[in-house]
Amino acid sequence: MASSLTATYPWTKVPLISCAPMRLIANATLAAAVSIAGGLGFIGAGSDISTLSSELFQARDILTKANISTNTGVLPIGVGFLIWGAPLADTLAVLRKPENIPAAVWLFAPRNPNQLKDWTEGVREATSNKTKIWIQVTSVREALEAVKLASPDVLVVQGTDAGGHGAAQGAGITSLIPETIDAVTEHCKSSSSAPLPFFVAAGGISEGRGAAAALCLGAQGVCLGTRYLAANEATIASGYRDAVLRASDGGTTTIRSSVYDQLRGTTEWPAGYGGRGVLNASYRDHEAGVTFEDNKKLYDEAVASGDKGWEGDRARLTTYAGTGIGLVKTIMSAEAITQEVRDNALKVLSSVSVSKL
Amino acid sequence: MASSLTATYPWTKVPLISCAPMRLIANATLAAAVSIAGGLGFIGAGSDISTLSSELFQARDILTKANISTNTGVLPIGVGFLIWGAPLADTLAVLRKPENIPAAVWLFAPRNPNQLKDWTEGVREATSNKTKIWIQVTSVREALEAVKLASPDVLVVQGTDAGGHGAAQGAGITSLIPETIDAVTEHCKSSSSAPLPFFVAAGGISEGRGAAAALCLGAQGVCLGTRYLAANEATIASGYRDAVLRASDGGTTTIRSSVYDQLRGTTEWPAGYGGRGVLNASYRDHEAGVTFEDNKKLYDEAVASGDKGWEGDRARLTTYAGTGIGLVKTIMSAEAITQEVRDNALKVLSSVSVSKL
Repeated sequence: MASSLTATYPWTKVPLISCAPMRLIANATLAAAVSIAGGLGFIGAGSDISTLSSELFQARDILTKANISTNTGVLPIGVGFLIWGAPLADTLAVLRKPENIPAAVWLFAPRNPNQLKDWTEGVREATSNKTKIWIQVTSVREALEAVKLASPDVLVVQGTDAGGHGAAQGAGITSLIPETIDAVTEHCKSSSSAPLPFFVAAGGISEGRGAAAALCLGAQGVCLGTRYLAANEATIASGYRDAVLRASDGGTTTIRSSVYDQLRGTTEWPAGYGGRGVLNASYRDHEAGVTFEDNKKLYDEAVASGDKGWEGDRARLTTYAGTGIGLVKTIMSAEAITQEVRDNALKVLSSVSVSKL
Repeated sequence: MASSLTATYPWTKVPLISCAPMRLIANATLAAAVSIAGGLGFIGAGSDISTLSSELFQARDILTKANISTNTGVLPIGVGFLIWGAPLADTLAVLRKPENIPAAVWLFAPRNPNQLKDWTEGVREATSNKTKIWIQVTSVREALEAVKLASPDVLVVQGTDAGGHGAAQGAGITSLIPETIDAVTEHCKSSSSAPLPFFVAAGGISEGRGAAAALCLGAQGVCLGTRYLAANEATIASGYRDAVLRASDGGTTTIRSSVYDQLRGTTEWPAGYGGRGVLNASYRDHEAGVTFEDNKKLYDEAVASGDKGWEGDRARLTTYAGTGIGLVKTIMSAEAITQEVRDNALKVLSSVSVSKL
């Protein structure tokens, strides 16, 4: 194992800033831009790999022109999979092509824990151990399970402030990261077969202060999702993006629920997960007892209305985003976001001096 | 306004560690011990001031022996009130006695926002401005409201990881603290009548890493509740304390709910609050549709069984605690807890160097 997280990905700068593999949103252009800025961008393949080859082709094209050195021949980006649904064999067939080997894969949400083992072993074999394994977990229990089953290179520890999918019930990173690190470290010390992974924090981090906080909690890197919704390179409807820019006070204006998935017809997630998004009329009507059929009809009408479906008090279209949504105020390039978060994290760490407290 | 938070309380050390005014649990012995260790301890008067005079008498006795200099003649502790229920006039009659004037009062949960103004003005008048006003808020909106109505000296910004009562729905401190600071700072800049308060972070902080993180987020001090449940000086049943020491993975083993209040007969809280506690049989039965009457009967039987009511899978007695419960592993003196959190926060801040990332 490398001596530091950034040493593993030689084009990256300290501290490592990564972009979450947001399904449908984090495509080749976004992932590549984050890596070009010295971070690690992830393509969000989700459970559907039908466009994976073309996304990798596009990313390779952008990254080749940027001339990033990876020294092991991997593509300097990652790919995220929802392993409850993504087809393992077909995925490996794509990833094993020498030109496709990503620097990392990000595995989330197994239908049963053994999928973590199967995917990890499969990817390591297919890529001759060139691809690092990132596993996203939402609790101390899941972290220990992942380490025991798969010995990942990185644990992405996701707090409940995160946007989109995560555990229906969970803690924020303030308590989750230190407790997870302590428990995993203790396990690895007592087991000669379990190398200590790196830890990346996710959930509620929108800018430099949150990133610096995550590093104090013990993480070696951070992951941002919501902030990159406002990146120029995100694949996102303008109505969705405008809704993100408008929202504030995310603790009161976003909610974790399964109702948005139900309305979108995304019903294959295993039990125990929910998606955090802006609290809208679909959610309020659901809570008020409107039948699913009626709510779905209203939702479909909103879909048909396009970007207007995200506007006003009666907005119904899903706006997956985390509690950090209020800190997202302007559209920027992914490169500028990545640099700003990294630079400000370092500034915060050096400026929180005792004399100011 | 003082130049720093600790300068306001001259016996305190940097960074300021405070103990939450936990009703029934944070009494004179705990509050005094925290202050003696260079923090700021709060007595949790809650909504009932029948023992306030005697608690202040006891605290004064302990603190006088410890010979702490406060230079303005205030008692070097604070008192927390739930202002939806505490009687303002009677409270002021106690606080205005020269020997009783506390260094701070902590106001939480108004039934209507104007109570913040009435209490702040009342306390400032009764104590000749010697007592600093701390107001606990759970969202950006509440923070702005408190600043506009009461110009508090300190905003305690509580994230949803906190144990006990808080907003039924909210964000963790990772996003809540920076957004609140930005919004309040912007408001105060644009209003000549609004001095910028200090910010204290609460929610999920159990030890030095969380405290360091909170300082990076922009807070000048931190508040711990759950950790002090395991202080020797806490007024707490041994069954409750043992349940805290046993619990881990607080994101999955604690839950914010109103069911615990209902079973305890604490039904006067305004709408919109819930208490986070260990997820127990009372909660599971409630979720499974057991009637309140049946659940209450089982709860009352558990009460009658004493400390056993906190044991095992069928534990029913309320264990209010935050998601940081898994980081609370040993019983220590409040003095040792306060020193350890403070020292480790400073160590973390100085050791998170870029070379290790």
